Order: sequence, then structure tokens, then C-alpha cells
Amino acid sequence: MNISLTSGKNIPCTPGSSILKSLKKAGIYLTSSCGGKGTCGKCRVIIKSGSADIRSKMKLTQEELNEGFALACRAFPAGDILIDIPKESMLTVEGRIATGKSRDLLALLHSKGAEIDPISGRIVLKLPPPSLDDNISDLERLKRELAANGLGCLRVPFRFMTNLARTVRKEKWEITLSTIHSEDCHEITGIFPGNRKAPQYGFAIDIGTTTVVVYLVDLTDGTLVDIASTYNSQIRFGDDVITRIVHATEHNEMENLHRAVISDINQLISILMTDHGISAGSVDCLVAAGNTTMTHFFLNLDPSAIREAPYIPTANIFPLSHAGELRIKVRPNVPVYVFPCVASYVGGDIVSGVLATGMHEKEELSIFIDIGTNGEIVIGNSEWLMSAACSAGPCFEGSGIKHGMRATDGAIEGIKINPDTLEVEIKVIGDDTQPTGICGSGMIDAVAEMFLAGILDRKGRLRKDVSDRVREEEDGPEFVVHYGDRQDIVLAEPDIENIIRAKAAIYAGFSTLLNEAGFTFDDVQKVYIAGGFGKFLDIEKAIILGLLPEMPKEKFQYMGNTSITGTYLCILSRKVRALAEKISTEMAYVELSVSTSFMDEYMSGLFLPHTNIDAFPGVKELMKKQAL
Amino acid sequence: MNISLTSGKNIPCTPGSSILKSLKKAGIYLTSSCGGKGTCGKCRVIIKSGSADIRSKMKLTQEELNEGFALACRAFPAGDILIDIPKESMLTVEGRIATGKSRDLLALLHSKGAEIDPISGRIVLKLPPPSLDDNISDLERLKRELAANGLGCLRVPFRFMTNLARTVRKEKWEITLSTIHSEDCHEITGIFPGNRKAPQYGFAIDIGTTTVVVYLVDLTDGTLVDIASTYNSQIRFGDDVITRIVHATEHNEMENLHRAVISDINQLISILMTDHGISAGSVDCLVAAGNTTMTHFFLNLDPSAIREAPYIPTANIFPLSHAGELRIKVRPNVPVYVFPCVASYVGGDIVSGVLATGMHEKEELSIFIDIGTNGEIVIGNSEWLMSAACSAGPCFEGSGIKHGMRATDGAIEGIKINPDTLEVEIKVIGDDTQPTGICGSGMIDAVAEMFLAGILDRKGRLRKDVSDRVREEEDGPEFVVHYGDRQDIVLAEPDIENIIRAKAAIYAGFSTLLNEAGFTFDDVQKVYIAGGFGKFLDIEKAIILGLLPEMPKEKFQYMGNTSITGTYLCILSRKVRALAEKISTEMAYVELSVSTSFMDEYMSGLFLPHTNIDAFPGVKELMKKQAL
Repeated sequence: MNISLTSGKNIPCTPGSSILKSLKKAGIYLTSSCGGKGTCGKCRVIIKSGSADIRSKMKLTQEELNEGFALACRAFPAGDILIDIPKESMLTVEGRIATGKSRDLLALLHSKGAEIDPISGRIVLKLPPPSLDDNISDLERLKRELAANGLGCLRVPFRFMTNLARTVRKEKWEITLSTIHSEDCHEITGIFPGNRKAPQYGFAIDIGTTTVVVYLVDLTDGTLVDIASTYNSQIRFGDDVITRIVHATEHNEMENLHRAVISDINQLISILMTDHGISAGSVDCLVAAGNTTMTHFFLNLDPSAIREAPYIPTANIFPLSHAGELRIKVRPNVPVYVFPCVASYVGGDIVSGVLATGMHEKEELSIFIDIGTNGEIVIGNSEWLMSAACSAGPCFEGSGIKHGMRATDGAIEGIKINPDTLEVEIKVIGDDTQPTGICGSGMIDAVAEMFLAGILDRKGRLRKDVSDRVREEEDGPEFVVHYGDRQDIVLAEPDIENIIRAKAAIYAGFSTLLNEAGFTFDDVQKVYIAGGFGKFLDIEKAIILGLLPEMPKEKFQYMGNTSITGTYLCILSRKVRALAEKISTEMAYVELSVSTSFMDEYMSGLFLPHTNIDAFPGVKELMKKQAL
Repeated sequence: MNISLTSGKNIPCTPGSSILKSLKKAGIYLTSSCGGKGTCGKCRVIIKSGSADIRSKMKLTQEELNEGFALACRAFPAGDILIDIPKESMLTVEGRIATGKSRDLLALLHSKGAEIDPISGRIVLKLPPPSLDDNISDLERLKRELAANGLGCLRVPFRFMTNLARTVRKEKWEITLSTIHSEDCHEITGIFPGNRKAPQYGFAIDIGTTTVVVYLVDLTDGTLVDIASTYNSQIRFGDDVITRIVHATEHNEMENLHRAVISDINQLISILMTDHGISAGSVDCLVAAGNTTMTHFFLNLDPSAIREAPYIPTANIFPLSHAGELRIKVRPNVPVYVFPCVASYVGGDIVSGVLATGMHEKEELSIFIDIGTNGEIVIGNSEWLMSAACSAGPCFEGSGIKHGMRATDGAIEGIKINPDTLEVEIKVIGDDTQPTGICGSGMIDAVAEMFLAGILDRKGRLRKDVSDRVREEEDGPEFVVHYGDRQDIVLAEPDIENIIRAKAAIYAGFSTLLNEAGFTFDDVQKVYIAGGFGKFLDIEKAIILGLLPEMPKEKFQYMGNTSITGTYLCILSRKVRALAEKISTEMAYVELSVSTSFMDEYMSGLFLPHTNIDAFPGVKELMKKQAL
């Protein structure tokens, strides 16, 4: 029994396996935010010929059903079958997204008073050759020379012993060591014959729930040589961390989730090494940051206890691991430093983000918010830091939104609605003018503009009488953001509910944390915003939505991906690494999921912009102007 | 093309490969002390039919050649061939040689003031379960509990993180840790759910150049549960350490020498574990001792620099390794502690031997001599220790001696010659009365008795006129020790020369070391003798030979295999392990190969008993009595 694709491929299938499962087995991955439960409606395929047992028609219109659309996770072939996979159903993998030198980032490093001092250093030694009068062993000779260089405590892992005799003799007793500091001691991570001070590279890695980003860094001068990124292919097991933990635990697939993200990283590393002609011996270390669950999957640690109260990770500070143990395809002995986490829902990406913002060095009270799949918040200054996760969900990354997508080519990233004519103007990422979905910044714009134009009421319900773009479909009303040739891009009422729940959670997080610490929004001098919104996030619209508190615009700073910035700073500086550990251990963590005041704040936030409209005087003014 | 064996087996062969090589490829190993160079004459086979290109007839009599005898290493099949392999050519592997409890060894441990405190300990912990108020990570919880138990510095290797979450939860937060001290810190080597305080076993291993011995030790009470031993199958690459280093270096076969000894150890461990129903989880550590070259091969370290001046080992004190790294078939995380060495030719077996003798704890001046393949000597007391290796060669283990063999079944271990009738009486090991060779103690007896009976002159030359047992063969005169049905057991003049060179080297070692330290034999209170002589070593004969200095008999103590005794003491006591490291670093080493006084002493020793007969007044008296 076969599934034929209109693209020409043929893959085997069995009656008991869904089309989604058979495609997956053949290495063809479809978007399936819900992990294949038939609830997200994203794994759509078109059955062109042959028959299939269709077990659910959810998320599909009668018209679509007539055209042969089916959810791949709910369709089971009854014989040979021919299908077409629409572009938007494919889980695509990007290639490189950016290339460039990094003057800005270097300036950021220097602004922290840190010099280039990579966490994995190289030491060149000229050993005195042995003689009958000086006949200590090779290892003792090495240790004696290092002690003379002031490097007292040195751990030589057993695996370096095998070829030590040959290596020290190869280039007349000159050798180069690469070392990293680990557990109060220097640990050897490489022994090379001769002087191999340069070249020396490292990879800084951000393991996002949705995207994996790798920076190739020249450790000798700090140059950011190149950048590569791709989707985190764990997406095929579910969009958010909880779905993935459930999948790993219930299907006993922890190892597969580990392998998925490692294979993404290997792919990116391989591209970067090939493109820049970098040999395996020149790579000295890897630094990675991710949320606590991503970190667990990356390190192949069982994450199941993270999911249930009292929410316990295996570790927050991780023993140093090595590329070989994680199956990362560089020299097996290359050390992998992983950013320390704070708690189950405030991870290394947030510690890295704090480092990137510099809020831990300033006297002023700041807020740092990373709007990714979770919504983590940090408040504080150089004296103290307090953090929380507000379970905002991944809707701003496109998940749980009918036509949601990441800020990549084809995404509607900006929307304007003329309040008088109700005409809609959209801004699409990339040269392709035909939009394929809507990303986080587009969603914020859309909801704020629809609200100001009177298309949405304060509860987030669509008003059918105002615009003919609001139409009633089988599963409820929706707003057409863009009329497409093949497919319209819409925001349906459940999408808008999701967005409002997310913004309510984030705003409630701000309020609760500030309150816990005895402050109000008036005390806040700076709000740093991180997240995958692309180049563009309209702060004013985010305030109208009630996602951000109403403050003077200059207090906000949008910083993009702060996690990767922090890993870049860390790979280049032992001082920054030490700071990361200090921040992670000293940062307080507030568990919002058991906080009643958080729940109250959250409920108040389920209105536009907020139940307490007086906290948004500017928005109130605008509403008055629009006679809302 | 095939080689058929009279035993029924058929093995493939090619014209370019010697019979020895083809047999080896098929897993059939012959004795070949010289490593297949055609010089030792031990790999004899009988060609029954078919023809072969015989490239050397050395070491074979005309009669033997007529019967079809050939050296397997110099015979190349010219077509299908049928051969018979005589029993004495087979490299046999013993099974277990002894079983027994160890009251004596435990008494030895206690006599050192050491209690049973195994170098790998187990700690049972009951962790307080986490709650929302106590929500630190599993790793922090573990470390906190250990710190509360006074175990401050603890290294958790990354590989233990994967299942930590599952393990701590499996038996209601009760866990058992196995740990070993390493690099100034405790290192975790196992994490088990529940209370697993017992059973707990360890293996103590002596890696001899000729024999590998394994003790199975119950770490909870110190019982020596069982013993197993086998030939070191590296013998197929040569009998002595130099031949093996040359083989490893020139044939790029380091890895094969490593694998050979590891496979021997795996075989012994497997027998012991099966016989006693021991599960993998109950084995906690391995302690091994060997000479410096054996230690290098065991750890897969390049030994080539050991062979040439200035004789440098990769290391003398080795980083802790783990069973998995060495391919030893117990739990991969089981730590392998290897006895520290002193220099290239005084190894961990000697350090272990010193510990077994206790000479390092006594005020009196002692000598320790281990007569194995090399002949290492230690002199000193509780204040100082000085060591040397005297390149005696492996003749007392049977190598380089026409009918030489180890002290095992079939070996002539004792010889008496009636000085009047010249009748010869032999003592053979085992029930098999038909002797197959002569072992070290037999050689010492033979040469001493032949000398006293006037059959040998002071230069070690056979006197044909005295006994009809002395006969002239093609390659010179030989003495028939035993007339056999199939084969006579003889000592030929070159054998006797070898024995005299070996005893001269050892005696020269004693004299030189004592002289270096400013002492004479009169100052020595005790001589500890180790070596594979079986149960029996006739001290008086060894003095007549001039191997041992003439002293009152009660000053000598024959101790058998001291290396395995030391490893047994070490596995049971952290105090003994610390002592081993202290001894290895504090013991001085004298390089005899560049000492002119050693060469002078050696030359003086090439007579029976010695050039300076006055140093042997008792022997002089005996000689006078026998009118020699």
C-alpha cells in the first residue's frame, strides 16, 4: 500500500497508520501544533484519488471537504492513494537567515567591562625534553610546566592519555592545550601537537521552542562570522513545551526529542563549517541556552517532573558535558557549556537575556519580558532580580492561531485599519507579496486596530454589523485580514480569544511581580522586550492591546532574540560565564500558577485593554476619540 | 587452500601466510616466545601430509625434520596440508587455579592498622521529597543532602544526569550512591534507586607479563570469594615487555595488545560472576597492578617511549578510568583504579608488592625482589625506599629455555642429583606424572645440583666426562633432566647460560643498590622474595646458584605473588590506596642500564656462585667437601 505525492514521491503506508504518521516515517514533516491530536487543523492535505478513512472533519469547511481536504493525522488510507501537500502544511526548514560582522555585539561585550577571554582557552607550551637526569613521565612533565605557568589545578580526563606520548613528541615537545574551567579546576578538552593558538572558533546556540539559532564566533577576536537558523524540528511532536514533555513521557520518546534538536544543531553547524572552511580541530567550545525544558531535551535529561507540581527539573546548573556525549558532530571532546536555569519555567534563555539587557548592572528598576512560547518576566536591578513565567502560550509564535506563523517570509507583520473607511493595509515579510499567514507583531496590530476601528468589542468579540470583512463560518465568526487567490488569511474569534488570554497572562505577570516586590509601574524605568517578532514591534499597539503597560514610549526597548546575544557574550568571556551562574543562583522565582493574585490580575486582563481602564489613560483617550 | 588439523578442524590459509599466522587468524594460538621470528623454536608442528615451503630448519634435529617437524612461523603451505599440533606447542589457557576464603589476607590488612573501607564506597540517602516551598532541582537536593552528610566536594559526571529524575523518584526518594575519591573530590560512579548497600563486590587484578590473576572480593566484609587466572594472551606477540613494545610500535598493533589483555580479564571476570551469581549492579570497582608496560597496554597508552633512552612512560600516576573506556565488561561506570608506577621499569606491581611485604612500615633494612620477567628490586625501610630493575629476563618463567615452562601442571619444580651416584630425582607439579617441561624453581635446583655434582663447571659449562646424561647435540651439549617416552626434558648449555645471566643480573642489582645507599648485605635484616615459582623455592639452592646472597635462611621470606596481594589490600582500604600513592612518589629509582658499577657487578656474577667466592663462605665449604 502506497501514498503517492503529487510532487512525484512514493511512500509506503499501512491501514493502521495515519497519513501524518506515514509521512513522518518517510521523513516528510507537516505542521502539527497539537502533536497529531486532530485539534490544530494544520496538517491539511488534499486527497486527489484513492480512498481514506476520515475520522474527523473538524477544522475543515464543507467546501474544503468537497475539494478533498483532510487532516493528515485523522486520515487513514484504505488503499493506494494520491495526495497533494499544500505549501502551508509543510514544516519548512530555513537556511541561513543572516550573515554579518558584529561590531555592535563586541561593543556590548566591552560595555560590560569584559575583554575577549573565551571560556575555552588555548595554552601553548614548550616542554623541556626529557633526559636520564630529568626522566619524569610525560604527564608529570606537562603538569610541572602548567604549574610553572600558574595553572595549578588541572584535570586531565583519562581519554587524553592514549596518545599523549605521541603528541608531545610530534613537534619537538611543543604542544597546545585547550582547557575549560569546570568544578573549581581547569579541565583539558584538547591536546594538539605544535603551536595551534589560532584559528579557534566556537558556536553560540539558542535553543528556542520554535527556532534554533547558531552563531559562528571567532574566539580570537570576537567576530560573529555567520549566523544560521532553522525550525526546532521537535515541532513535529507538538508546539509547546508541555505537549512535548507529555509526548516524551507517554510515548517513551525522550530520546527522539533529544535527537530531533541535536540533528537541527548538527545541520546548522555543518553548514557553517563547510561554508567557512572550518576544520574540526579549530572548534573549541559550544555555549547553549534554552528554556528549562529545551535544555533538558538538549542534554537528554528526563523532563517529566517539570510538568507536574511541584515542578522540579533534574538540574538548574548542569555539569559540563561534551559534544560526543550529546552526539554533536564536532570533536567529541569539545566542551558544551549550557546556561544555568532558575526554575522549571524560567530557563537559561532568560538568564542569557538578562545578561544581554544589562539590567543586572543598573540601579534603575527594569522589567525584562521574553515573549516566546511561554512569556517569562524578570524585574529588578543590580541589587536583586525576581522572575516568573506566566504561561502565555505560544500564540505570538503562530501556534493555536488558525493562520498563525512565525515572523518569516510570507508573514503579515503589520496591519493598519483606516478607522473611517475600515480599509485594511498589510505589510508582508519578504519579496513574496502573497501572504501565507500572520505573525506575532501582525496579530498585535490586528487586534489593536480592530478594537480601535470598533470591529472588536472590549471582550474581544467580533461585531458583524460594522465591517463586511467579518463573516460567519461554521465554527463561528472570523475577520478576513487578507483576501487571497487561493486562501483568505483570517483571524477567527477563537484566535482573538487566544491572543487576549496571552496578553492578559503577560500583563498579570508584570503586575503580580511588581506587587510582590512592593513596586508599581510608575517605579519602572525601563522595559526590555525580547521575542521573535521580527524587526518590528509596534509598542503603541501592544499598549492598546493591553499587552504592555502604558508608559512613555522611550522606556521601552525592543531587543529581538536576547538569548542568542547572551550566549555570544558568554562564549567570549569567562567573566560573563561567572555572571550567568551568579544571576541564575541569586534570581528569585515566583510560582504564578499557584498565586491567587495572579489569577485575579489575569481575569482583569481579559478585556481590551484592561478591566481597569484607568491604568491606560492614553488608550482611554483614544477610545473616547473613536467614540468607543 | 586449507590447513587441516589432525584434531578435525579445517582453517583457510594463503601461500603468503605462515602456518603460525593462519592459525592465529583462526583463533588457535601457539607458544611463540620470540613473537614469530623463528628464534625460540617453540611453535613446532608436525606436517603429516601436503607440502610447505620451509624457510628455516633452526632449532630442529635431523630426526625431527625426518618426522615432519617444522616451525609454524617459518612454514608456508604450498597447497592443502594436514598438520598435527603437539600439546607442548599449544598456548593453553588455564581455568580457575584456586578458590578460597581469605582469613590470612584479612589478618594482613588488619596488621596494617587498616579497617575495611573499600576505595569505592556506597552511601544510602533518604531525600526529603520536594514541595512548592522546597522546589530546588533534583541535583541540588542530592548535593544538599550530601553536604549535610559531610561530603562537601562531589563531582557528578554528566552521564548520570539522564536518568536522575527517574531514579530519585523510583523508590520514594531513597537512593544509593557509589562513589570513589578522585582528584581531591568524590566522584559519583553509580546511582541506584532504593537501599542497595549490599551486595557489593570488587575485582583485584594482577596483570603479569605472563599471567593475569583476578581476585573476586566481597567489599562488605573483605572475603576473598574466589580466584581465577589465565595466561596473558599478549604472549602471542612476544614473551617479554620489550618484544611486545616493539611489536605494538612497529606493527601499529597497540590496540591489539590492549584488546588481548582486556579479553583475558573479561574472560576471568565473566567466569567469576557466573559461578557466583553476581549481577552487574553489584560490582563497584576494579583495582589493577602491573609493571609499567603492562599498565600502559591495559590502559591503551602508547608505550613506545618506555623502550628507548631516556625511558619515559606516558604517566606514572594515572587518571581514574572507567570500565567502559577500557571495554571491561562490567557496568561502564565502574571505576578502574590502577596502581601508580615509579618509573618505566619499576611498576605498580612493585608498589603493590612493597605494600604486601610491609617493608615500608619497618625500621629494619629489607630487600624486596620480584623475580618475574624483569627482576625488580627494592631496598629500604620506613624512612626511605630505593628501587631498580635489573633486566634479568623472563627465563625463570620458562622463556628462552628450551623446555622452560611456568609453574603449572607438568612442570618439573624440584630436582635432586645424588652427588655420588649422579642419579636424578624429580618432583613434578600435578597428578600427571609425565613432565612436559621445567619451571623456575626446577631450573634453580637443576643448576645448583649439577654444579655441586660436578656436572657443571664454575663458568656454567657442561662436563661431558662426568655423567652420561650429558650428551652432545647438533647445537651443543645438553643435560637430560628426564628421559621421556616421547620427548626428553633437557637443559642445554644456552639454557644454563641464560639462567646464569639472569641470576648475575639480580645479584648485581642487590649489590649495586645496597652500595648506592651505603650499606652491605650484613646490614640487611630481611629479604622478601616474590615471583611465580609455585609453592616451592629452595632458598639454599638459590644461594648456591648465586641468585640470592648468602645469609641465614630465616632472613628470607618467600611470598609468592605479592602484586595481587597488594591489590587485594588496596581495594579494601582507602588508607592503603593513599599509601600506594605515597610509596610510588617517594620511592627513588636507580637506572641500572647506565650504571658502570652494575655492569662490573654483573660480570662478576657470571660464575657459580660468584667470582668473589668469599661472599659465599657456606657454598665455598660445600664445594670443598665435594672437592670442586
